[in-house]
Amino acid sequence: MNHIQTSASLVVEELKPILGDRLATSNAVREHHSHDTSWLAPHMPDAVAFPRDEDEVVAIVRACAKHGVPVVPFGAGSSMEGHTIPVRGGVTIDTREMNRIVEIRPKDGLAVVQAGVTRKQLNEELRATGLMFSVDPGSDASLGGMASTRGSGTTAVRYGTMRENVMALRVVTPDGTPIHTGSRARKSSTGYDLTHLFVGAEGTLGLITELTVRLHPIPEMVSSAVCAFEDVGEAVQAVIETVQYGIPVARVEFMDEVAIEGTNAYSGLDLKVTPTLFFEFHGTPAWVDEQSRLVAEIASGHGGSDFRWSTDPDERAKLWQARHDIYWATKAQRPGCELFTGDICVPISRLAESIVAAREDIDASFLKGQIIGHVGDGNYHTAYLIDPNSKEELEEAERLSGLLVERALAVGGTASGEHGIGMGKIKYLRKEHGAAVDVMKRIKAALDPAGIMNPGKMGQEG
Amino acid sequence: MNHIQTSASLVVEELKPILGDRLATSNAVREHHSHDTSWLAPHMPDAVAFPRDEDEVVAIVRACAKHGVPVVPFGAGSSMEGHTIPVRGGVTIDTREMNRIVEIRPKDGLAVVQAGVTRKQLNEELRATGLMFSVDPGSDASLGGMASTRGSGTTAVRYGTMRENVMALRVVTPDGTPIHTGSRARKSSTGYDLTHLFVGAEGTLGLITELTVRLHPIPEMVSSAVCAFEDVGEAVQAVIETVQYGIPVARVEFMDEVAIEGTNAYSGLDLKVTPTLFFEFHGTPAWVDEQSRLVAEIASGHGGSDFRWSTDPDERAKLWQARHDIYWATKAQRPGCELFTGDICVPISRLAESIVAAREDIDASFLKGQIIGHVGDGNYHTAYLIDPNSKEELEEAERLSGLLVERALAVGGTASGEHGIGMGKIKYLRKEHGAAVDVMKRIKAALDPAGIMNPGKMGQEG
Repeated sequence: MNHIQTSASLVVEELKPILGDRLATSNAVREHHSHDTSWLAPHMPDAVAFPRDEDEVVAIVRACAKHGVPVVPFGAGSSMEGHTIPVRGGVTIDTREMNRIVEIRPKDGLAVVQAGVTRKQLNEELRATGLMFSVDPGSDASLGGMASTRGSGTTAVRYGTMRENVMALRVVTPDGTPIHTGSRARKSSTGYDLTHLFVGAEGTLGLITELTVRLHPIPEMVSSAVCAFEDVGEAVQAVIETVQYGIPVARVEFMDEVAIEGTNAYSGLDLKVTPTLFFEFHGTPAWVDEQSRLVAEIASGHGGSDFRWSTDPDERAKLWQARHDIYWATKAQRPGCELFTGDICVPISRLAESIVAAREDIDASFLKGQIIGHVGDGNYHTAYLIDPNSKEELEEAERLSGLLVERALAVGGTASGEHGIGMGKIKYLRKEHGAAVDVMKRIKAALDPAGIMNPGKMGQEG
Repeated sequence: MNHIQTSASLVVEELKPILGDRLATSNAVREHHSHDTSWLAPHMPDAVAFPRDEDEVVAIVRACAKHGVPVVPFGAGSSMEGHTIPVRGGVTIDTREMNRIVEIRPKDGLAVVQAGVTRKQLNEELRATGLMFSVDPGSDASLGGMASTRGSGTTAVRYGTMRENVMALRVVTPDGTPIHTGSRARKSSTGYDLTHLFVGAEGTLGLITELTVRLHPIPEMVSSAVCAFEDVGEAVQAVIETVQYGIPVARVEFMDEVAIEGTNAYSGLDLKVTPTLFFEFHGTPAWVDEQSRLVAEIASGHGGSDFRWSTDPDERAKLWQARHDIYWATKAQRPGCELFTGDICVPISRLAESIVAAREDIDASFLKGQIIGHVGDGNYHTAYLIDPNSKEELEEAERLSGLLVERALAVGGTASGEHGIGMGKIKYLRKEHGAAVDVMKRIKAALDPAGIMNPGKMGQEG
């Protein structure tokens, strides 16, 4: 037994009377918490705790702090960059039992939830209120995890990312002190903005136990449109003009020809195999109608054709289901393959050239790959189809992803639009943020001098 | 000469060859930088520097760091809570010569400006682009100052505060290191969110030298409406329903009967003397028309009457001018008086009771006062008319402002919606943020161990 394991066993001994069965040391549970959805090497925690409330989190963190044992927060396990891999062992805190919706305040447009509540769970609960929680990453992630990676999804162009939708937090700091950040007011000019410091900190500065999030009215009318373009440049130009015109598109998603081909095959659609935009408009019936007409006009000015739009819920559902099934559609293109995904975000004026270059990289590679994106934000994902057992293919995917990031940084973009840094992209942190990384490290050292919160990640590395 | 003055004279000696006339030690210049627009006691800096670029700021901060001399950032001097008062002397850095608009990128909807650029200057420059910078505090503040106080104004309900409109910063840290934060991408999941840490830090963690800010399309059509209500409760309920309906009002301002009375007299209007809402709608002509009709319907459901609306630019300008002249209209009610302003923000469901209680406090006091507010955000200001030479009146104003804050905090609100903490409200910081204040202090100590950046304020006190 090494030092950490010995210390961890002391922590387990101390916590067992408090948590009982909700403190697991079995191989099966530890194995489940040793990896995420990424390609990064797994590593087992020494124990996994399933607290139900903040008091229990405080007890766990204090015990770990006392014995110098790492604490690794874990939500739904849907990270794509290794955030939750306990590379130095220790105690993983799985928040799945912290799944209580504490309060919904429709007049204030906010909900208070424990960190383990998932986005679908919250929206289910909101149905009767006429309000929705807008942030929609692909998976049914926990809100604590989404906040920690500063996650987003298809609606960020209209409603913002977690950055804009988290109003307040409760956090247990690395020394086991529970604090609150922010307030229930829409705006505030008091104190350092700790809410935004913890949002995106990937669990390295403390563990989020509770979130106050913004809610938005469910629109009276929703309409979708699909529009085919000759090339990427014209499609992106149509998006730029739409935004410049002040049309508040609720979603605008891009799929390249490879993605369309896979989707047609998988979802039984007959979309033209060409760069394509999927729009969604929210508002009153008259306003949605006007938005659709304005966008159709802009799109046709850029060679957009086949502009199909629909307010029929079933037809809409089928279309967005196809968009959401892109993961499966892509995998179906090469039986047995896995997807290696890229995720960058650039100023929208540089988006077309960025996508074209990414496409050329893929075409020149022996790997097959596709491009989809939240283009209203300038954010897109590459997906390379790889054989998970081929070192050569993995290395090639990493090379392509690296090219993507380097080009994004060269035009003022970022290494990750929504998946986060985790371990997979920590190597780009200094390239993007320069000397500011040293400021980040000083903050980490000030809040977590013993380095027990999610060690080996941001704040220590990079 | 005390220690600080001796050290300061060494700094002056070192900087004179670099800054020449742009380093002032005259009494007149120092006096000008000894106060802001608040009631707080003035204190003179030892010297005032007027740098033109980041390199010069670096030289100043390094010289001050070397000799342990305080550095106090100063924008337009329009602070209302004593942010820029150099309570421990040192070198005030006035950014007025850093007034260059570095770059405007219409397609990306962003502008890059030096910290001393004012909001009006930027909007003047933007005229030809069809874009605008939306944040509009009462004064023509510098963008560096607005960012540092996390400022806002009448359009925050639609376009957000500085928190939502600053994308990236260049900052000189307390040891004289220039860093950049954020990027030109709309969203990012990389690194701690240092942009939001410096926004609202009131110059205590570093000096902002450059900002990248979001721009918004100038709407095709703008329409304004005024609507009179029986009481505050009904007016606020109309606002809540408007927001819940998803109508994106661009502005919704409240004035109580005392404010209306003063405005009528000062601006030659004939508004009904009763709680009143001023609306503004932005969009296409058809959409603006629909928004106006929907809001008129909601308002009349709450006893709203006299619903006057206008798309005529002159009539609109007159109305908003009257709203903006409220400061002068109020002062005119009591010749020779000054205004002591309160500024709190509450969850909107608690706004009506909050305003009613504030009104009752004023009515029970020997002071005269009025209430105006950015009610879509739950933010409002009290203004007490006081004789600047009366200790008794000043104390009474402070007592009323204190009651306001205590009640706001009791319902989950904040001690300041947009004016900041400065020195005037530092006493409420711990009451609002609890143990999180210790986290703030640890961050301050980590980034500024010698405590030279705007000392005696947030991060050290509270």
